[in-house]
Amino acid sequence: MQTELSKKLGIEHAVFGFTPFPAVAAAISRAGGFGVLGAVRYTAPDELKRDLDWLHEHTEGQPYGLDVVMPAKKVEGVSEADVEAMIPEGHRQFVRDTLAKHGVPELAEGEASGWRITGWMEQVARNQLDVAFDYPIKLLANALGSPPADVIARAHDQGVLVAALAGSARHARKHAEAGIDIVVAQGYEAGGHTGDIASMVLTPEAVEAVAPLPVLAAGGIGSGQQVAAALTLGAQGVWLGSVWLTTTEADMHSPALTRKLLAAGSGDTVRSRALTGKPARQLRTEWTDAWDDPSGPGTLPMPLQGLLVAEAVSRIQKYEVEPLLGTPVGQIVGRMNEERSVQAVFDELTSGFEKAIDRINRIAGR
Amino acid sequence: MQTELSKKLGIEHAVFGFTPFPAVAAAISRAGGFGVLGAVRYTAPDELKRDLDWLHEHTEGQPYGLDVVMPAKKVEGVSEADVEAMIPEGHRQFVRDTLAKHGVPELAEGEASGWRITGWMEQVARNQLDVAFDYPIKLLANALGSPPADVIARAHDQGVLVAALAGSARHARKHAEAGIDIVVAQGYEAGGHTGDIASMVLTPEAVEAVAPLPVLAAGGIGSGQQVAAALTLGAQGVWLGSVWLTTTEADMHSPALTRKLLAAGSGDTVRSRALTGKPARQLRTEWTDAWDDPSGPGTLPMPLQGLLVAEAVSRIQKYEVEPLLGTPVGQIVGRMNEERSVQAVFDELTSGFEKAIDRINRIAGR
Repeated sequence: MQTELSKKLGIEHAVFGFTPFPAVAAAISRAGGFGVLGAVRYTAPDELKRDLDWLHEHTEGQPYGLDVVMPAKKVEGVSEADVEAMIPEGHRQFVRDTLAKHGVPELAEGEASGWRITGWMEQVARNQLDVAFDYPIKLLANALGSPPADVIARAHDQGVLVAALAGSARHARKHAEAGIDIVVAQGYEAGGHTGDIASMVLTPEAVEAVAPLPVLAAGGIGSGQQVAAALTLGAQGVWLGSVWLTTTEADMHSPALTRKLLAAGSGDTVRSRALTGKPARQLRTEWTDAWDDPSGPGTLPMPLQGLLVAEAVSRIQKYEVEPLLGTPVGQIVGRMNEERSVQAVFDELTSGFEKAIDRINRIAGR
Repeated sequence: MQTELSKKLGIEHAVFGFTPFPAVAAAISRAGGFGVLGAVRYTAPDELKRDLDWLHEHTEGQPYGLDVVMPAKKVEGVSEADVEAMIPEGHRQFVRDTLAKHGVPELAEGEASGWRITGWMEQVARNQLDVAFDYPIKLLANALGSPPADVIARAHDQGVLVAALAGSARHARKHAEAGIDIVVAQGYEAGGHTGDIASMVLTPEAVEAVAPLPVLAAGGIGSGQQVAAALTLGAQGVWLGSVWLTTTEADMHSPALTRKLLAAGSGDTVRSRALTGKPARQLRTEWTDAWDDPSGPGTLPMPLQGLLVAEAVSRIQKYEVEPLLGTPVGQIVGRMNEERSVQAVFDELTSGFEKAIDRINRIAGR
């Protein structure tokens, strides 16, 4: 499947794969798609450098990109400690109580929390970019608004296309005005941060709002049939994230979490503020239920909620406390029912796409 | 656009149009689609008979159907008065207070509330069916679970296909087990009662769940491009409701409401229990906000909520109290920006469908 954008990027299939795992990103690019490595977890530049080295060596010359989480508005002189100080004690106690209720063990002394919110802060994202621009990345995506103007300019100077996620036509238009090159229209059914407009409605709205800029459709896509539907809605490509979580190349660090993903149905996710303070779709768990319960203290705004729960999430994941164990994932989790290689996922995407085109042509009498 | 199901029904386009207005239903059937008249508002059999007479005369021999709201489980010997008695006084006071706050006038003495919940009760639906089975309807749809077994048998005896709405693969499977002929998979983005799984995910899940039974895709469909996408997802037809509300044939009885629909964006709806007690997508208004506000009394379960608000909704509509004025409608309302004839909507559906097929074939290299 070829669009103007896929031709421009020199890829075989207009399938963009977002993933936190270098092995998955490399396999996506090798399979003829476009692998995009999520940078948010790399707070240490050296670790990002190590993984980009690995990625570059394993894409067999195929293009790849990077996804950062960078706020468009700069907050001057605010440290993680300043933000920590804004968290009410009642909320900290609620975290302790909820963990205690489920017998979640403490981390060992000196053991770092694996999941830090600091990746969400602008300086950290800038450090990531300083590393990434030394590599021949072809795409820089920002998951949180348009990137700052100087970052867009720097990317363009190096011939890097800039993409930004949007949950509404208005967001998409703002990105276009900021000078980005590609809008990722993220529907309600998507994993992670998402608005409440579903892909069937959002995709064509975003396409019309920013034409002739290309739009990638995200949310609810895990089969070749869904790729065909999303491209039919006017997208120049699809952006898939959830479907890679259960590939053999993914390094989830938790067999229990993989089992939960494989067992979950499309109705087993929830759009909750529990993880970051903004609505993000994830597996519904007793942890999200606790935060969404009206009798609880409720969630804090971003970035406070993320800081508040970072260590708790690490403990839940490390000790695989099943009732609380979750991850961002979209409604497509209902079709993620077996571990497959990235190549096997691609084989189904491309063969399912062809079958769907055959069928719709029969319906159209062609 | 032709599918097995459209051929079976002898219609030109696999487009099913649900509407409470006989003039719209007739125009849909005349345009080559399949008009389905919503019966819920006909509490008097004579009125339904009058409108079915009119509909039959104006479809030019093309097929049409009826949509009822019939609970699968029978509640014996419960009258409307019994149900009324279950409504707490605090909730009645909240209705009075909210109306008073916005200066909503009373109905005139003896003036009947135009919108009655009684259409939701089984006996009323059975009276509707006694009328409808005297007409050559080709489809009977039920918006609330599978119809009772004897109703399915009676329909089949008369060669009438039975459809039922489903919001999940599990619901779809239950309908299939009950012996219905067509599943309408109603996505999260749809107007009226809907679950939380979006069409992009729900449609293929429902298709797989009930194959070889045909599935109609509902939710988020208002353009030919969206028709093409929905059929690509495996549906044998599309089921459109919202898009007809702003056609010239629609009799909304409220210019203010039509203006609100034409002005609304895709983000201006909400899935709320305010209207019936079950989640139904509708325009977001100060009325839905009042019911969804955690500091209010909250909504009552179906059928209590519908009975509680019936008169209030009539008053709001009659006096066009704009901040409170709403109607069930899907996220597709964002693309309903001008009054058009049903035929003009069809012309766009069919030409947009062909354009979308052209484009996806180019992407597929065909």
